Order: sequence, then structure tokens, then C-alpha cells
Amino acid sequence: AIFSAAQAVLAPQDLAGQHLLVTAGPTREELDPVRYLSNYSSGKMGYAIARAARMRGADVVLVSGPTFLTPPQGVTLIPVVSAEQMRKTVLDALPKATAVVKSAAVADYRPASLSTQKLKKSDEDMTLVLEKNPDILAEVGAGKEGRVLVGFAAETQDLLKHAADKLKRKNLDLIVANDVTQAGAGFDVDTNIVKLLHADGHVEALPQLSKDEVAHQLLDRVVELLKQREAKTDQV
Amino acid sequence: AIFSAAQAVLAPQDLAGQHLLVTAGPTREELDPVRYLSNYSSGKMGYAIARAARMRGADVVLVSGPTFLTPPQGVTLIPVVSAEQMRKTVLDALPKATAVVKSAAVADYRPASLSTQKLKKSDEDMTLVLEKNPDILAEVGAGKEGRVLVGFAAETQDLLKHAADKLKRKNLDLIVANDVTQAGAGFDVDTNIVKLLHADGHVEALPQLSKDEVAHQLLDRVVELLKQREAKTDQV
Repeated sequence: AIFSAAQAVLAPQDLAGQHLLVTAGPTREELDPVRYLSNYSSGKMGYAIARAARMRGADVVLVSGPTFLTPPQGVTLIPVVSAEQMRKTVLDALPKATAVVKSAAVADYRPASLSTQKLKKSDEDMTLVLEKNPDILAEVGAGKEGRVLVGFAAETQDLLKHAADKLKRKNLDLIVANDVTQAGAGFDVDTNIVKLLHADGHVEALPQLSKDEVAHQLLDRVVELLKQREAKTDQV
Repeated sequence: AIFSAAQAVLAPQDLAGQHLLVTAGPTREELDPVRYLSNYSSGKMGYAIARAARMRGADVVLVSGPTFLTPPQGVTLIPVVSAEQMRKTVLDALPKATAVVKSAAVADYRPASLSTQKLKKSDEDMTLVLEKNPDILAEVGAGKEGRVLVGFAAETQDLLKHAADKLKRKNLDLIVANDVTQAGAGFDVDTNIVKLLHADGHVEALPQLSKDEVAHQLLDRVVELLKQREAKTDQV
């Protein structure tokens, strides 16, 4: 605790006055009271970003799916379970935010019908109909106004192609792309190997870093983008 | 640590010489490298049983699906992910066991086809075909020989009916039934409210107890059952 207090004091306060909205973790989509569909996101990357942003002086709201992580001190944690809950919470928190970092791994699909009773095993195989969840990132992108918007792309193939496509389609300023099949990257490990794709097309490949270091690198870019916004606003 | 060492010394050594095989936690069934199907089992009940059995002198193998719990000291933990892995591990460990307590919440179904690449979102809804997982408990029940076999039934309705049916169908000696919709019972809480159904038809309703206390109550019954077995074997 003493060490992190010292870190906080030593960190540049270059996000002071900014309101960061960070999402983290997986979502869980219930099939019935017992079973759910989820993904391997641990929330570590998003929590690292929230912690680093707080250290650098930002006011931070962290909307998090189910994780087993300790919430960073000084951060407003709003726990959610499903994509639908995450959407509602993010849209509620959005008006105040000056920058949004969406690192949550939101489930693309949810069961089309939710059973209120535990489904019983039958002899037959079972067909589960899934319907698409709301696309929160696209919704935030469409209504982003002056905000800086950062997304994530966790892929297993054609990483840069998928990430560049997502950046454009969702009106992002920056996308953090990582190949989750790489050792030392992705879910549930403490390091990450990412590429940063900017809206102007340039790509930065970062080396293997701790998730805390990736968070600070990312926030350096956010600070830059916020400065550019302010410069633009000043010109008007 | 000192407290639990004292507990271990004070506990009756009534399971000394016995080999307990305990399963715990959920299983995860992969859809692709990123997504999975699982359930809300925290593993707390199974870990409590493994810990209590070790305290009472048993040699304990704990086969556990993914949990965030600390393995009990002195217990041989074998981590698994899917039902298929749990089946293989349980069948491997079975020959040595004198009693088996299957508290894991094994997924009944798994995706019929596993994608090696992350599935991409399309505009359409998605149909997921699930196939039945192996019924490990029934398999252990069918080949149980002289072993004491304890199962669990986590239900949301018709608790006693479903539990009694499962007890009989799977050749169990005892089944621990709990209604997971009750406050203070079921997944991810530290207490449980259970009914113990015996093969001879009698039912004991226990009050709300800590999972450690439920574990000891359960092991009292296992000790009794093991004694009955030995008495029977002696008669032959």
C-alpha cells in the first residue's frame, strides 16, 4: 500500500480533470439459474487501466463483469453481469466521460430464451438458440461527440485486419489488438503483447509488457488524443 | 495456520486409512478458444469436504474444475477443465478410493463442435448444438464395488423427488440435496441448507450450517457407511 501510494504521488497528473469510463472483464449470459455462457477474460487489463488512470489523476468509473480481482483504490466500481446490464450502465455513465476505454470482453451472443428453472437433462442432444447482444462499443462510437474512444480486439487470426476493421466500423480513436493465442498475451496472464492501431492508420507494435505498463502506454496515447481535442476546440 | 493445525490435531481420526476421492467446482465446456459454457459452482462445498476429510485422517484426492480457491493443505489436487477431463481423471483415481464424494457441478452438455478459431459475429442469430457429456456419477455408480458413493443434487424445483431419483438411478449410498434458489444455500455462499437422502429411504434435514459444518456432518455419515461395509465384509 505504501508503494502504490508512492507510485500515485510520483505519477504524472496528466489525467487530472478527466473523467475516464473503463469497462473490464467478461459478461455472463444466463441459460437458466445454474448455467451460463461466458469467456476467458480475467479483467486484469481493464483493472490495470483503471488503476493507472486513477494514479494519473483521472476520475475513474470502472464497469466490470464478474472477476475475482480487487477493485483499485479510489475508483468507482460498478459491477454488472450480462451484456444488457453493461450496456445500460455504460450509457448511464457516458455523459460525464471525457474518455472511454472499453476493455471488457462483452459476449456477442446470449441465449434467446432464459429458463427460470434449471433445465433437466434429457436423452437427446440439445439445441441452444443464441441471439445477438447489443453492440455497446458501436453505440458509444455513434454517440461519442468529443470523447476519446479506445477499444480492444482479442483475436485468434487475421489480427490486424479484424482490428482495423473494428476501429473504423465503431468510430474509435485507438484500438488495442492482441492475439490471445500468443504466449504472454491475452486472458488471465499478467503480461500482454499488443499492437496499437490509430484512426489515422498508423500502427505501433509494443513489446511484451506487464499489463500495468501496457495501461500506462495506452494512457499516454489517450492524454495525447485529449490534448488534440482541446487544441481543436480552442481553434473553434 | 496455527488454528487449522490445532483443528487437525483435535479432529477425530476416524477416516485414517481411508482413501477419499472428492470432486469439486464447475466444468467449463469450450465453444472456441475464447468462449465457454459453465455454471455457478464455486467449488466451496467440495473444498470444505476435502479439507475436513484430510483433518480426519483420510488420504484425499481432490479433482477440481476451475475455481479461485486455495487448495487445502495435505490434499492432492488434480485440476481439470472439461467434463471429459474430469471423467478421465476420476476413473484413473477410482481404483484406490474407498469412498467417493462427487460434489462437482459437471456440465450436462458441451458444444457438439469446437471451433479452433474465435467465432466471428455475423448479423444472424446463432444456433449452438449441444451434445450430452458423459455421466461420470452413473459410471462410478455402476462400477462402485465396495466403495461408499455420495452425490449432490442442486435443484431449483421438486428437490426431494429429483434427488431421490438421482440417488437410485446412479447407485449412490447418500445424496446431498440443496435448493440453490434458497438464501444461504447453494453456489458461492459460505453456508448451505441441505437434506441428506439415504439409500434406505430415510431423509435428514440439516439446519443452515457453514459449508465446513456440512462437510463434517456428511463425513460422519461416510464413516458410518464405511463401518457398515467393513462389518459386511467381515461377515463374508
